[in-house]
Amino acid sequence: MKFGVLGSGMVGSTIATKLVSLGHEVKLGSRNAANEKAAAWVASAGRGASQGTFADAAAFGEIVFNCTAGVGSIDALRSAGASALRGKILIDIANPLDFSKGMPPTLFVSNGDSLGETIQRTFPEAKVVKALNTVNAGLMVAPGRLRGDHDLFVCGNDAGAKAQVVRFLKEEFGWKSVIDLGDITAARGTESYLLLWLRLYGALQTADFNVHVVN
Amino acid sequence: MKFGVLGSGMVGSTIATKLVSLGHEVKLGSRNAANEKAAAWVASAGRGASQGTFADAAAFGEIVFNCTAGVGSIDALRSAGASALRGKILIDIANPLDFSKGMPPTLFVSNGDSLGETIQRTFPEAKVVKALNTVNAGLMVAPGRLRGDHDLFVCGNDAGAKAQVVRFLKEEFGWKSVIDLGDITAARGTESYLLLWLRLYGALQTADFNVHVVN
Repeated sequence: MKFGVLGSGMVGSTIATKLVSLGHEVKLGSRNAANEKAAAWVASAGRGASQGTFADAAAFGEIVFNCTAGVGSIDALRSAGASALRGKILIDIANPLDFSKGMPPTLFVSNGDSLGETIQRTFPEAKVVKALNTVNAGLMVAPGRLRGDHDLFVCGNDAGAKAQVVRFLKEEFGWKSVIDLGDITAARGTESYLLLWLRLYGALQTADFNVHVVN
Repeated sequence: MKFGVLGSGMVGSTIATKLVSLGHEVKLGSRNAANEKAAAWVASAGRGASQGTFADAAAFGEIVFNCTAGVGSIDALRSAGASALRGKILIDIANPLDFSKGMPPTLFVSNGDSLGETIQRTFPEAKVVKALNTVNAGLMVAPGRLRGDHDLFVCGNDAGAKAQVVRFLKEEFGWKSVIDLGDITAARGTESYLLLWLRLYGALQTADFNVHVVN
């Protein structure tokens, strides 16, 4: 399958590497087609890996991952273009973290709104599914490296798209438990959880953790 | 030991009932000394149970629980009086839920601030420890009714007060795992988690759940 991955940072390159290792074709998108980090990734990832602009990557992918920093996500997606995203599943991993006021970061949109909703509103013809934003990049693609059960959350307005993403996360990324929280407004919950995640990161002194819902 | 419990709703009466069952003396505080719900609680709880105003309850307790609705917490604590809270541990269970704009509720303070911090700032001589606000009333005092490990979070500025609360939660309420998230600013994390809790409540169709941190 063909994937477009927007963002050549840690999250984007980790997702892209996993997809290539599974035999998929992946175009890693950046602001500039000749982005050096993306070029280094293409050189190391091997067969199936390519790079381009955000627009190139979005046009290439049958499914598109938003792995850009939250603060730049809307600009990156505008650069990708609404027409390239039309009718496609857009898996939104970004978090609305604002580091401009120091540490710990705050959220630049939260409470009664979310980044996931903002993206869905701005690109109404994309099928936005919020997922994977509650764990670090390594765990996203290797959930089995934690001992014990733990859960991933998804939300989105399109039931079919969401079901396809859940199947993908289980079959390709190895997630055993994925909890459907409802429509895209539930991104308020999973994005705000980052404020607890940051405190747990401080307390545990590792980013390699996740939560398991017990009931 | 003597406890003051502020708030005669579900959370306050559940906490107060548990404390009385453990052999403690508890004064349940309400806006009016003759509050009917509090009177019904006193009649049913038996030996050790009494009621009074917020001020009566705060003066009575060696430790004080804030079980008022978040939107009324500052008023209730002002009514209790800074002098009655001076030097005492104030276990803050309240969440800053705003139901005025419909369901699901939003938070009236969040992100770069929290209700826990607001209470600590307003009553600087109280030793505020935020705890128990991430689970429903029943689980607060009976964590063992969930099968499997799950965790409680505490935060606060006074290390000695926090250690005493952690010991209390384990020995008296039966919590096996309590994670110290740091100073009172971590209340931003545990209060914002409510936005995820609300979505989980919708997805699971039960409020009887909690999270276990896996690492």
